Amino acid sequence: MKNHTSTLDIVKASKSKIEDTDFENLTFGKVFTDHMMECDYVDGAWQTPKIKPYGPLQLDPSAKVFHYGQAVFEGMKAFKDKDDHIWLFRPDENFRRINRSSERLAIPAFPEEYFFSALEELLKIDKDWIKKGFGNSLYIRPFVIATEEGVSAAPAKKYKFMIICSPAQAYYSGEVRVQFSEKYSRAADGGVGFAKAAGNYAAQFYPTNLAKDAGFQQVIWTDANTHEYLEEAGTMNIFFRVGDKLITAPTSDRILDGVTRKSVITLAEEFNIPLEVRRVKVKEIIDAAKSGELKEIFGTGTATVINPIRGFGYAGEKYELPKLEDSYAKVFKDKLMKIQYNETEDKYGWRYAVK
Amino acid sequence: MKNHTSTLDIVKASKSKIEDTDFENLTFGKVFTDHMMECDYVDGAWQTPKIKPYGPLQLDPSAKVFHYGQAVFEGMKAFKDKDDHIWLFRPDENFRRINRSSERLAIPAFPEEYFFSALEELLKIDKDWIKKGFGNSLYIRPFVIATEEGVSAAPAKKYKFMIICSPAQAYYSGEVRVQFSEKYSRAADGGVGFAKAAGNYAAQFYPTNLAKDAGFQQVIWTDANTHEYLEEAGTMNIFFRVGDKLITAPTSDRILDGVTRKSVITLAEEFNIPLEVRRVKVKEIIDAAKSGELKEIFGTGTATVINPIRGFGYAGEKYELPKLEDSYAKVFKDKLMKIQYNETEDKYGWRYAVK
Ligand SMILES: Cc1ncc(COP(=O)(O)O)c(C=O)c1O
Ligand SMILES: Cc1ncc(COP(=O)(O)O)c(C=O)c1O
Repeated sequence: MKNHTSTLDIVKASKSKIEDTDFENLTFGKVFTDHMMECDYVDGAWQTPKIKPYGPLQLDPSAKVFHYGQAVFEGMKAFKDKDDHIWLFRPDENFRRINRSSERLAIPAFPEEYFFSALEELLKIDKDWIKKGFGNSLYIRPFVIATEEGVSAAPAKKYKFMIICSPAQAYYSGEVRVQFSEKYSRAADGGVGFAKAAGNYAAQFYPTNLAKDAGFQQVIWTDANTHEYLEEAGTMNIFFRVGDKLITAPTSDRILDGVTRKSVITLAEEFNIPLEVRRVKVKEIIDAAKSGELKEIFGTGTATVINPIRGFGYAGEKYELPKLEDSYAKVFKDKLMKIQYNETEDKYGWRYAVK
Repeated sequence: MKNHTSTLDIVKASKSKIEDTDFENLTFGKVFTDHMMECDYVDGAWQTPKIKPYGPLQLDPSAKVFHYGQAVFEGMKAFKDKDDHIWLFRPDENFRRINRSSERLAIPAFPEEYFFSALEELLKIDKDWIKKGFGNSLYIRPFVIATEEGVSAAPAKKYKFMIICSPAQAYYSGEVRVQFSEKYSRAADGGVGFAKAAGNYAAQFYPTNLAKDAGFQQVIWTDANTHEYLEEAGTMNIFFRVGDKLITAPTSDRILDGVTRKSVITLAEEFNIPLEVRRVKVKEIIDAAKSGELKEIFGTGTATVINPIRGFGYAGEKYELPKLEDSYAKVFKDKLMKIQYNETEDKYGWRYAVK
C-alpha cells in the first residue's frame, strides 16, 4: 500500500512484528516498531520524507558517517494515557536541539514542518506499539547521518534524517554508583560536548569500562581543564542535594542542555525547593558527603526520567548516600511522569498531543 | 571465483572498473578499487577476513556506529616503483595506531597477522590500480565500525574491520593559509584527540567552515584550556621554522602521533637541522612573523606528505610567509618521497615490500 501526499510518502509493512514482541521483557533499545521515517538530503535540499517498513540501510563503505563521525541524534518518548491518547513531552526542545547539534557538525538543519508531520504520522501508524501503563513508553530516536561517499575529511553533501522507535518499559538500571572522573574527560571548551554528536558517546566507553571494573556503573565527568568541577554523566545531567538545597551545573559548550534538567529546574521553583545553577566543586560535594550534608545525587534524562544515585567514588574513596523516604528524586519523578502520562494538570504546556 | 585459505576468504569481482577510471583526473578519495577487505567481529572474536568485490554495506538503522560514533580509521599509501614493485611506508605504525585508537573507543584490537596478510593480498589483487610515477599512489583506508543493533549507549559486541583503497595523484591543495584557533578546539586532555576516532573529524567541520569564510583553508588547533599553544591541523601535524630551527608540538592525548611527523623528526637529525619538540606558543610565532624570523610553516600527513603553508591569520591579523628557494618543506618532501618510491637508500627500514 503506497500513499503519497505532497509532504510524506508512506509505504506500509506487509506484516506486523508486534505479535512476536514480548512487551513484558523488553531490553532497552533492542526491538523496533514496524516502520521508520527516512528523509534524504541531496542536491542541497531535504527531499520528501518517507515512512516505510523498518529495515536495513544500504551505504557505501566510504560513506562519511563511517569515517568522520558526522552524525547526531535525539532521544524522546511517546506515552499513551488511559484513554489511548498519545502524548509527547516537549518535542519542540528535541527538534531545536537536533538542529543545534547538526549546525555544530556542519549538517544542514531539518525543517520543523517535516519533523513534526513525519513523526506524528509514524506514531499513528505504529500506535499499537505504545503500551499503556505508568512506565511504559515508546522511545523515539531521530538521527542524522552523513551518507555521501568519499574518504576526504570535509562535510558531506548527502545525509539521511531518520526516526526509529523502540518500545520501552520503565527504565530500571539497578542501584547506580558513579565515579567522579579524575583524568578522562568527555568534552572541551570550544568543542562539541553540548551537541548530541555521536562521537561524544563512543569517547566515554573506555573510561566507563574502567569505572565499571572499579565497581561503578557510570562516570560523572569533570571539566577537562582542572577536573575540579562536576559536570554531567554520560546520558544524564546531574543534581546534587546539599541540605535542602539543590545544585546543578550550568549548561555550557561542554554540557548538554537536557530537557529533563530544565523541567526539574522549573518544578523546583514550583515546589519551593531552593536551587542553585552554578559550577559544582568536587571538593564541596566530598566535604558535604563527609559532614552528612549531602542528601542526594540524581541524574535526569529522557530514558530514565530521574535516576537516584546510591553512592560515588573519588580519589580511591567510596561514599554512600543516605536512603531518604521523601527524596527530591522521587518527588520530581512522580510529577514529571504524571505530566507525561496526562494524569495531572499541564501548567507549562509541556504535553504535546499526537492526533 | 572463490578461494578459501584458513586465514582469508577471497571472492573476486566478475568485472574490473579500472577501464572506466580516469587516472589523470582523480578527486581524492572518490573512486575505489575493485575489491575490499571485510572482517567481522562476532561472538568475541574476529572471524576469517574476506576479500570481496567493493560494494555497499547493509546495516541496521540502529547500528551503534550511527548513534554513538564507535568508529576509528587509518590512512596509508601504497607506491609502485619503476620495476613494478609495490611498497608501503611504515605500515606497522598504522597497524599499531589503529589498535591504540580502537582501545580508546572500547573496540577490540585487530590481529596483526590478519591485518598484514589481508592488506597484502588486497594490494596484490588490485595491483593494477597502483600507478607508477612520482606522486601517484594508492590511498589505503582501514577502518572499524560498530555494527551491533541497539540504541543504548554502551560498547557494541559486533564490529566490522574493513580496508578500502582509492587511487590518488599527487595531492595538490592549492596555496594553503591557516587560521590559528582562538575559540574552538578539537580535543581535550583526557579525551580522544590522539586517536583517529571518527568523531574528531566531524567536530572540526563547522569551525573550519568559519575559517573558510574568513579566507583560510584550514585551522591550526590550539590547546582547549588556554588557546595559547599551537597543536595540529585537522589531518596534519605542524612544524614551524624560526630562523634555521624547526619546532613542533610534542604528542599528547590531544595530538595525533603522525607517522610523517615522526619521520620528519628523524630526517631533521640526519640533515643536521636543529629541531625542538616542545609546546609552541602562539605568541612566539606571531613575534617571529613580525620580526621576519618565521621562515616556514608546514603540515605533515600521509595524504599530502608535506604541505607548505603560505600564511596564517590570528586575532584579526593576516600574516604571509616568505617564499624560500631551499625550504625545509621541499627537502623533507623530496627525501620522503624518494624513500617511498624506492629511489633512494632506506636507512631506517621504513619501506615494506608487498610481495
Ligand atoms: C550527554 C547527555 N546529557 C544529558 C542528557 C539528558 O538530556 P534529556 O533530559 O534531554 O534527555 C542526555 C540524554 O539525552 C545526554 O546524552
Ligand atoms: C589529526 C591528524 N593529525 C595528523 C595526521 C598526520 O598523520 P600521518 O602522518 O600519520 O598521516 C593525521 C592524518 O593521518 C590526522 O588525522
